Amino acid sequence: MATDNNKFQAIISHCKEYGFIFQSSEIYDGLSAVYDYGQNGSELKRNIRDYWWRSMTQFHENIVGIDAAIFMHPTTWKASGHVDNFSDPMIDNKDSKKRYRVDHLIEAHAEKLALEGKKEQEAALLQSMDNLLAKDDFDGLKKLIEDNNIKCSVSGTANWTDVRQFNLMFSTQLGSVSDEANEIYLRPETAQGIFVNFLNVQKTGRMKIPFGIAQVGKAFRNEIVARQFIFRMREFEQMEMQFFVRPGTQKEWYEYWKAERMKWHLSLGISADKYRFHDHVKLAFYADAACDIEYDFPIGFKEVEGIHSRTDHDLSRHQEFSKKKMQYFDTEINQNYIPYVIETSIGLDRTVLMVLSEAYAEEDLSTADKQDSRVVLRFPAKLAPIKLAVLPLTKKDGLPEIAREIMDTCKKSFRCFYEEKDAIGKRYRRMDALGTPFCVTVDHQTKEDNTVTIRYRDSMQQERIPIAEISRIINEAIDQ
Amino acid sequence: MATDNNKFQAIISHCKEYGFIFQSSEIYDGLSAVYDYGQNGSELKRNIRDYWWRSMTQFHENIVGIDAAIFMHPTTWKASGHVDNFSDPMIDNKDSKKRYRVDHLIEAHAEKLALEGKKEQEAALLQSMDNLLAKDDFDGLKKLIEDNNIKCSVSGTANWTDVRQFNLMFSTQLGSVSDEANEIYLRPETAQGIFVNFLNVQKTGRMKIPFGIAQVGKAFRNEIVARQFIFRMREFEQMEMQFFVRPGTQKEWYEYWKAERMKWHLSLGISADKYRFHDHVKLAFYADAACDIEYDFPIGFKEVEGIHSRTDHDLSRHQEFSKKKMQYFDTEINQNYIPYVIETSIGLDRTVLMVLSEAYAEEDLSTADKQDSRVVLRFPAKLAPIKLAVLPLTKKDGLPEIAREIMDTCKKSFRCFYEEKDAIGKRYRRMDALGTPFCVTVDHQTKEDNTVTIRYRDSMQQERIPIAEISRIINEAIDQ
Repeated sequence: MATDNNKFQAIISHCKEYGFIFQSSEIYDGLSAVYDYGQNGSELKRNIRDYWWRSMTQFHENIVGIDAAIFMHPTTWKASGHVDNFSDPMIDNKDSKKRYRVDHLIEAHAEKLALEGKKEQEAALLQSMDNLLAKDDFDGLKKLIEDNNIKCSVSGTANWTDVRQFNLMFSTQLGSVSDEANEIYLRPETAQGIFVNFLNVQKTGRMKIPFGIAQVGKAFRNEIVARQFIFRMREFEQMEMQFFVRPGTQKEWYEYWKAERMKWHLSLGISADKYRFHDHVKLAFYADAACDIEYDFPIGFKEVEGIHSRTDHDLSRHQEFSKKKMQYFDTEINQNYIPYVIETSIGLDRTVLMVLSEAYAEEDLSTADKQDSRVVLRFPAKLAPIKLAVLPLTKKDGLPEIAREIMDTCKKSFRCFYEEKDAIGKRYRRMDALGTPFCVTVDHQTKEDNTVTIRYRDSMQQERIPIAEISRIINEAIDQ
Repeated sequence: MATDNNKFQAIISHCKEYGFIFQSSEIYDGLSAVYDYGQNGSELKRNIRDYWWRSMTQFHENIVGIDAAIFMHPTTWKASGHVDNFSDPMIDNKDSKKRYRVDHLIEAHAEKLALEGKKEQEAALLQSMDNLLAKDDFDGLKKLIEDNNIKCSVSGTANWTDVRQFNLMFSTQLGSVSDEANEIYLRPETAQGIFVNFLNVQKTGRMKIPFGIAQVGKAFRNEIVARQFIFRMREFEQMEMQFFVRPGTQKEWYEYWKAERMKWHLSLGISADKYRFHDHVKLAFYADAACDIEYDFPIGFKEVEGIHSRTDHDLSRHQEFSKKKMQYFDTEINQNYIPYVIETSIGLDRTVLMVLSEAYAEEDLSTADKQDSRVVLRFPAKLAPIKLAVLPLTKKDGLPEIAREIMDTCKKSFRCFYEEKDAIGKRYRRMDALGTPFCVTVDHQTKEDNTVTIRYRDSMQQERIPIAEISRIINEAIDQ
């Protein structure tokens, strides 16, 4: 077994080698913290996205989906607080021109103190930093950096600018007419697209509380330190659902969605001990309750999904800024109110990484006679990029023709892969590396009795089945 | 029958009223040329996207998909020519500060001449404009505007700036470190994401020519005049496929894809006379052949899809700018070459508009006794946002419970809608307006013999069927 960090690196290499995930614009030496999904990664991501979408909308009568644009009216981000608050304090070294996040700069220095055995100084420094950050005391932060004589690792000097806020939203100019041009933002989250459409969806869909609106889409954050492969990217995809409830019932719905979302995670075939809830102790001022669902990645337990009881904060803010009444008339109690909201927010790319981490295995298959091993991706069949590989044993004797017939039947229902090159064992191993749950091999016996050998990825067992059975077996596995 | 422009307006209103398409950020008075898909529009768009994806990838063994990021290395757009050429000549009026696309300004003046009966002057003006545009003669264009005494409609003056190029790409700044910050662009097309990943996909997927790479995703263009609802938006979605072929075979593949793509369009249930090919006479300098597939929208025949024989232009440019060999070794003829490319590029939003335009019908159902009419969306079942409505005749006598059981069975396979309010006739009409192909009504007889009334959207016929048959009937319709 590889160490965890080795496993993480092995997964990254595997993703590249087998067409799951490439560095964006790699031929131009890449774009930092941006990735492209290859021929297998795009299918995996798509299957996860579809499964989430179906789970949330198709299986819940009272949840509908929307697909709002990335571009939104800039006032949206005033109302949401992102223009004023979605930022990190930064400082520049005047000599090297290098910019640092203040907390990262101070933490790096604290780590150095710890390594030198100065535990008390370390603790004091971190305590001071936390106090100053909590008060947004930028002058104090600068003074703390200077007092500790913290230096830039590039220039080696302590010649610092003032501490300033740096907003994480990407901005661009909409419109061509110079005096009309608006600075707009690439949305940093999909949730606001749901809130601004609340009235439209509720009224045109005649939705009754409690009900939810779900959305999947791209979001963008100009992260200072973006890293850890697809875990933290500057362009990423979110799957969010806002559930609108009667004020006073939010606690029970919060608990409902915590349980419901954990059930969804377990339905991916991941065992419960790989997950944990992390309850937020320090809540945003408007929040009622909040927790993360964390998965045990090779790089440690990290947030995959957040569940938040957001009260009526968002809708109230949009009511204030838009002057439109964001209210619901509850016929059961004959009252008008601004609904409360429970949000479930999961990162699609993180879920891809979670599913890859869970699926990836290096297996020692050595016997007394022979050293052997394989890399296998043990995806649940419903998420696997390719469901079935159809393999004629040889390129002649009419075997490819029979294999093609099987392809033609099966490819209507699910994604199949045809391969006639290389020895059969080598082809199996390649399919293991892509996470293909089933292979069927067409051989000379097939011509006599219309049976094929089906080979199961996880057990590596093989058995003889009639051609007519293939489709049913695989469809059943996908439906699980 | 409404006139065509009335029909177009009626479709826009219908889309708003029934939760298909909303103006983006409507509570903030909207964002120009950006739209959000509502609860029914998002499902329609999703079904079209999935159908295209399956048609291109799952049904074609030699086509795989990718999902590249919107952010790409800026050199990509140098290589593609977009930095230098993706622009329109513009002129500003100094008094009103209003900016015009030069061709639009001149064409508006030409139209005025035509209305005044000055046909010859009109023709001469347009001819001069075309000549100057072809030569990028900006001074000449300015002179033409001044010589014709063309005035700004706002200020009424002819006080113009020089003519300048205005690039249609949106730009933003990536990265936080001031001296490292890169100007990057929001991709104006998805195609380049395929070209820069050509080597990665070909090698890791061991693809053999001819093969294709497909992609669906957002693209962005800062259109000067964005209009006609979702036909021309600043943020839109493309479905593109690049098919890589051996040089010399591109003509036959171009013809193949013309035919194949038209077959796809006809498989949407749209008749052949609503389509036409528009062959490009004036080709881009690198192109071999190009045509559009145009659909007869209520606003006239307009491009939905483009099919282009692009030679080795794109890959050659990326080879030049990246210094990476964009070559393929063809084992059949033992030669290295840069593949030629046939591109099929279809607008997803335009396809949504096409499907809506085709489906929308106002029907007069009046009889001798009674005036009556309905609005119905005759979507193919496979594209309909909701496949089945389950309607208990009354809210009591155990009918809702039976309806819920039907829901629970059916919603695993397709999207269902439950409704128990309002008279049954009213509920049918609402489902017609949403394009739901099937309704089943649970009534008192259901309790006795386990049958329901199925009502067909298009014929409005009703018949009695066993509950056990519902799922099969609808699955068969979706599969068509």
